Amino acid sequence: MRATIMYAAGDVRIEDVPDAAIEEPTDAVVRVTRACICGSDLWPYASMQRSEAGQSMGHEAIGVVEDVGSQVATLEKGDVVVMPFAFSDGTCAYCHEGLPTACVHVGFFGNNGMNGAQAEALRVPLADGTLYPLPVGEDDALMPSLLTLSDVMGTGHHAAVTAKVAPGKRAAVVGDGAVGMCAVIAAKRLGAEQIIVMGRHPDRIALAREFGATDVVSERGEEAVERVRELTGGEGAHSVLECVGHNTAVETAIGIARPGGAVGRVGVPQHTAIPGSLPAFFGNITIGGGPAPVRAYLDELLPDVLEGRIDPGRVFDHTVGLDGVPEGYRAMADRDSLKVMVTP
Amino acid sequence: MRATIMYAAGDVRIEDVPDAAIEEPTDAVVRVTRACICGSDLWPYASMQRSEAGQSMGHEAIGVVEDVGSQVATLEKGDVVVMPFAFSDGTCAYCHEGLPTACVHVGFFGNNGMNGAQAEALRVPLADGTLYPLPVGEDDALMPSLLTLSDVMGTGHHAAVTAKVAPGKRAAVVGDGAVGMCAVIAAKRLGAEQIIVMGRHPDRIALAREFGATDVVSERGEEAVERVRELTGGEGAHSVLECVGHNTAVETAIGIARPGGAVGRVGVPQHTAIPGSLPAFFGNITIGGGPAPVRAYLDELLPDVLEGRIDPGRVFDHTVGLDGVPEGYRAMADRDSLKVMVTP
Repeated sequence: MRATIMYAAGDVRIEDVPDAAIEEPTDAVVRVTRACICGSDLWPYASMQRSEAGQSMGHEAIGVVEDVGSQVATLEKGDVVVMPFAFSDGTCAYCHEGLPTACVHVGFFGNNGMNGAQAEALRVPLADGTLYPLPVGEDDALMPSLLTLSDVMGTGHHAAVTAKVAPGKRAAVVGDGAVGMCAVIAAKRLGAEQIIVMGRHPDRIALAREFGATDVVSERGEEAVERVRELTGGEGAHSVLECVGHNTAVETAIGIARPGGAVGRVGVPQHTAIPGSLPAFFGNITIGGGPAPVRAYLDELLPDVLEGRIDPGRVFDHTVGLDGVPEGYRAMADRDSLKVMVTP
Repeated sequence: MRATIMYAAGDVRIEDVPDAAIEEPTDAVVRVTRACICGSDLWPYASMQRSEAGQSMGHEAIGVVEDVGSQVATLEKGDVVVMPFAFSDGTCAYCHEGLPTACVHVGFFGNNGMNGAQAEALRVPLADGTLYPLPVGEDDALMPSLLTLSDVMGTGHHAAVTAKVAPGKRAAVVGDGAVGMCAVIAAKRLGAEQIIVMGRHPDRIALAREFGATDVVSERGEEAVERVRELTGGEGAHSVLECVGHNTAVETAIGIARPGGAVGRVGVPQHTAIPGSLPAFFGNITIGGGPAPVRAYLDELLPDVLEGRIDPGRVFDHTVGLDGVPEGYRAMADRDSLKVMVTP
């Protein structure tokens, strides 16, 4: 079968690899019908050291179950499933608490040697705990939005939850990538009264406005902080959804938070220390977030997609086959594309 | 009148100063019957640059109202009051939300030129919003515990609240100073099942155990993290109450937090960036806290003191008159004293 392998920064190839197959009795094999390129894939695309073995890439997918191990109880061949970016056992304390990304058996697809989803198929460990069956056919028109539930929409929702968005609150979204766009949807969905999106790319700003953004701040750094303060009656935002991960983005996020407010970090941090210790402390600003427990959010988000209340699939502005994946990486890295869907 | 003035690191003097007097119609003048030396006073005691004017010191007090301005409505001469470490108007949005330390008119006693409470008397701005009348006489036996409601007990409670202590949770307290001791009381009061105190001073550990600590960790750094993990079934603590402020203390706090857990910072940060960005992110650990809204906590904590359910006044192990204040600073800085009460 064919799969996407990254060998070094900027070196992404489509290669023939051994077919995905059951290895453990709790595994399933999923034929991938839709996958994506993620903003977090751009970090290794920018910086990965050359590796002889390479890294199988991709962690967001929808597919069809092709085979199940002998201990898989809840899935069968032919099921259409969404695959969250992390696998989890579904039975440990963390899974029961709704934090499957801290599962005692957690693993991340397309990371540290693990199978990737930008491929014709992949092996999914702990299939019962990980995969979520969908009540639709594999070519349903809702596929793009359903696909976002594997990561980007759940991640935007996690930013909103950890930033404590609630009805009547003022929210600000740092980052105009696909997660930022989904964070706007999530903030709107949770009832934010004002949603400020920080960005300057015209197409993205237009999409953010359609998703519910009420204000746009195109300034950066200190000027951005000043502008958000102006837009929020001098106070700052109750909820700041940090969807980038750069040091400056986190610093801005803390700078625009209202005293007593919260910052939800979902951008993978590119720093070992969180800037803004003193303003966060003196403002009693809470800093939360992390890898989104998207598996746990499916029960809440899926009905909104199925019933058309949210349409996060609009973040996809390019679709490629497997052969187009290397070009998809380039397009996202150059910000020519907001998010790329892959149809293997 | 006499007051405590700090001129430089290690240089604390008792001096004659002009009598406290009403300056604004919203002021009160309070004759101080009890004050304290705070752990946070030890930061300038260790590092203050020499100042000709000096800084009037002290921000925790109980006293008797001696005079009120023409617009003070809720207080009268003779009232026994507790004075929180910050003044606040009691009317702005932040005060109504329970965060008076973010009041739009907030100020901190004994800081930035503001009056200090280690004195015979002091002027209290915004008296209606700031002072809290007590239903006891000025020599009531409960005075030491009531005095802690001006800062240290409210601050320990804030650590517990922002670390999300709740019934059945495992809590860990970083720091064995007076705030750490009160954090133990607060964690117990909010129902923590396990309370691990990190410290090595025998008297303090003994007191922490009497307050409800179930385990003691005397190791430091990585060894302390390992030990807490052992004590918590390998998981870490749901709630970490960080009562120091040093970089290493915050790093330890994040290191011992359970995935999905929370760190409540109440030690004044001695660093511009929060260490542990990556473990906090990947563990979905929330970092909260800041200057405690002790004024807002009085309604909740006062009945427990008055009815004897908590006894935080036991943190005082030395009492001095004003003349003894310089020696009190030395004793606390040398860790000869846990906390010093001042009876001017």
